[in-house]
Amino acid sequence: MAKNVIVGQSGGATSVINSTLAGVYQTAKRRGAGIVYGMRNGVQGLLERRVVNIDSQISSELDIELLKRTPSSFLGSCRYKLPEWQKDKALYEKLFAILDELEIGYFFYIGGNDSMDTINKLTEYGRRVGSEIRFIGVPKTIDNDLMVTDHTPGYGSAAKYIGVVMKELIRDASVYGTKYVTVVEIMGRNAGWLTAAAALARGEDCEGVDMICLPEIPFNVERFIEKVRAMQEKKASIVIAVSEGVKLEDGRYVCELSDDVHAVDAFGHKSLTGTARYLANRVAREMDTKTRCVELSTLQRCAGHMTSRTDVTEAFQVGGAAVKAAFEGHTGMMVALKRISNDPYQCTTELHPVEEVANLEKMIPMEWINEDHTDMTEEFLAYARPLIQAELPAFFVNGLPNHICLK
Amino acid sequence: MAKNVIVGQSGGATSVINSTLAGVYQTAKRRGAGIVYGMRNGVQGLLERRVVNIDSQISSELDIELLKRTPSSFLGSCRYKLPEWQKDKALYEKLFAILDELEIGYFFYIGGNDSMDTINKLTEYGRRVGSEIRFIGVPKTIDNDLMVTDHTPGYGSAAKYIGVVMKELIRDASVYGTKYVTVVEIMGRNAGWLTAAAALARGEDCEGVDMICLPEIPFNVERFIEKVRAMQEKKASIVIAVSEGVKLEDGRYVCELSDDVHAVDAFGHKSLTGTARYLANRVAREMDTKTRCVELSTLQRCAGHMTSRTDVTEAFQVGGAAVKAAFEGHTGMMVALKRISNDPYQCTTELHPVEEVANLEKMIPMEWINEDHTDMTEEFLAYARPLIQAELPAFFVNGLPNHICLK
Repeated sequence: MAKNVIVGQSGGATSVINSTLAGVYQTAKRRGAGIVYGMRNGVQGLLERRVVNIDSQISSELDIELLKRTPSSFLGSCRYKLPEWQKDKALYEKLFAILDELEIGYFFYIGGNDSMDTINKLTEYGRRVGSEIRFIGVPKTIDNDLMVTDHTPGYGSAAKYIGVVMKELIRDASVYGTKYVTVVEIMGRNAGWLTAAAALARGEDCEGVDMICLPEIPFNVERFIEKVRAMQEKKASIVIAVSEGVKLEDGRYVCELSDDVHAVDAFGHKSLTGTARYLANRVAREMDTKTRCVELSTLQRCAGHMTSRTDVTEAFQVGGAAVKAAFEGHTGMMVALKRISNDPYQCTTELHPVEEVANLEKMIPMEWINEDHTDMTEEFLAYARPLIQAELPAFFVNGLPNHICLK
Repeated sequence: MAKNVIVGQSGGATSVINSTLAGVYQTAKRRGAGIVYGMRNGVQGLLERRVVNIDSQISSELDIELLKRTPSSFLGSCRYKLPEWQKDKALYEKLFAILDELEIGYFFYIGGNDSMDTINKLTEYGRRVGSEIRFIGVPKTIDNDLMVTDHTPGYGSAAKYIGVVMKELIRDASVYGTKYVTVVEIMGRNAGWLTAAAALARGEDCEGVDMICLPEIPFNVERFIEKVRAMQEKKASIVIAVSEGVKLEDGRYVCELSDDVHAVDAFGHKSLTGTARYLANRVAREMDTKTRCVELSTLQRCAGHMTSRTDVTEAFQVGGAAVKAAFEGHTGMMVALKRISNDPYQCTTELHPVEEVANLEKMIPMEWINEDHTDMTEEFLAYARPLIQAELPAFFVNGLPNHICLK
């Protein structure tokens, strides 16, 4: 009898995370899997035996297409860090007992570097106890900060969203022709990939953003204000893209200078917010200009109404490639995207051991940042531009995008 | 010889304000106008004789279509209040001299209640000096707060954008299944039409927002927190739509309780910001829950990537109707939308004297707000739903919406 499959989604959602789920589900069924289970809220839900039979959720090919177009984890997500097995063996025994009871042969986890840590630990423990379950990681993060993969599914759509709204914000800010400084806060704790995507706005019909501040570059508030002052002597409306994760030379986050509450999550990550507001307020106090801060907030990861078709397609493909790999006997691996060429853009998948990915972060290469540390180079644009190509419209019902929900 | 036409755009931009400009331009040309001038930055630019010949900007029917799909005032905008002619006659003499020099016969001003005040004053002065220029106001505002018109061009797209992103934010906030209060700040100083649009999110595939706080209803912070607490006892993720303009019973804006800088504009309007952040911080301090504030910010008025086709079409139609009215000899009038029926939705245009609109604001009828003052009734939904129907995709170039710019 065919073994069953289980799949989970973890970490922050993306606009295309469910396209990967669709890829896992459809490929598993076509390749003869038994039941395809979904973990409710990732491994955390699995430990409470909260699973759904995805067959009971997806009843047509239209549902598959709708799933591809539905943002934010269909199965729910978690921010749960598995302990080392040496520290809590009982937890691993419980988890593997649940998997055995469900007759799981293949385990897929869609997530970022924290999730690859989960796959790594489960693979290691599985090997020790002689489990035959195949564990495969499937990349997903808007942050684009995973090692070994050319880029991550989710990044292309977030980058497209950022490019689109930057163009619109730049237009909006310039209509009065008056002095105006707009500071736009974009996600990205340590890696500036999302903030860099603001560079995509520039084109024949848009001057583009005037400054990009990445977390890779130490930030100096006084120097920042001097640069803004100099720019505004030449141009009334200045639009700046700043990463929520920009840090001072002493290592403190700029947002820590603001008075917001900064909670800490299960992975020890400090909540970052208030960077743009702090900077816009500083500019307002020190310069004779109107200012505004705009936080793209969670919309940059859940704007299913503006996805990159390239991204949706690749997200589906990594799901399918993960199933193929597991069914062929691989385990402890993550599916990676491998770029064949930029122009024409071609990309395929390959496998890498998850320990090459787990808990590591890929930063923007310094040579993709201009000398002045305020803009991206052509190399970055050549890298990012193919990832935002083409659109996949939502299914609109009653004027709004329709989504599929767990029954 | 045919008289020339001049058209200006004023006040905050919308996603469809240029569709109205396209309607004015195309209809004027088809009806035999001479030169069609555009004011750079509205009346303020006109006073400095900054005008463009729109014929030199639009060279094809494709340009017209691109203009319809380009958000934020193509001609630039202003927030300029004309003084009473009794107080600055020289200014009116200068302005009419410029109009005469340009051989203007027809003057169109696309804007909200402040702009209708401008049309009113120009008409009055024109009558006194025996000018033959026809002055027509064309409605535009995301705020939907103009009298006599069923709704305003710009509102439908903003309402659709708000409905779309509320659905996405609600999904995103629920993926962890943990306690979470999201407060979303939506524009609207005195009238809650935009915030009310958050009610559109509810449907078969979305539970909808949990509370709507309108500026029409006096706000009490303690009662607000009690309501949130009660809701969260039944449901982990609570999403609240709050107007930037909510006021305490003593008349102060809630955002004045925050520490943000609140500048005042030319019309004496205080800049409102920080309402959602203040409330999210209060909830975080008083309840055991994670919170987040999301400010939709200027995107709600400039998100040309998510417009309502109904709105784009009607915005074009009011432009055309304005030209027809002026060419038929009307002056001192505003084009209004008149709804014929909800289902099937049918709408036509009519004319109203601008003094019925200038400086007035239309609030939401109290019977469209539920008894608890936390949600909208079916009557509101029946009113708003037709306005967000159908889509008009942008023209995408290189993965991003293409816009037309002044040469």
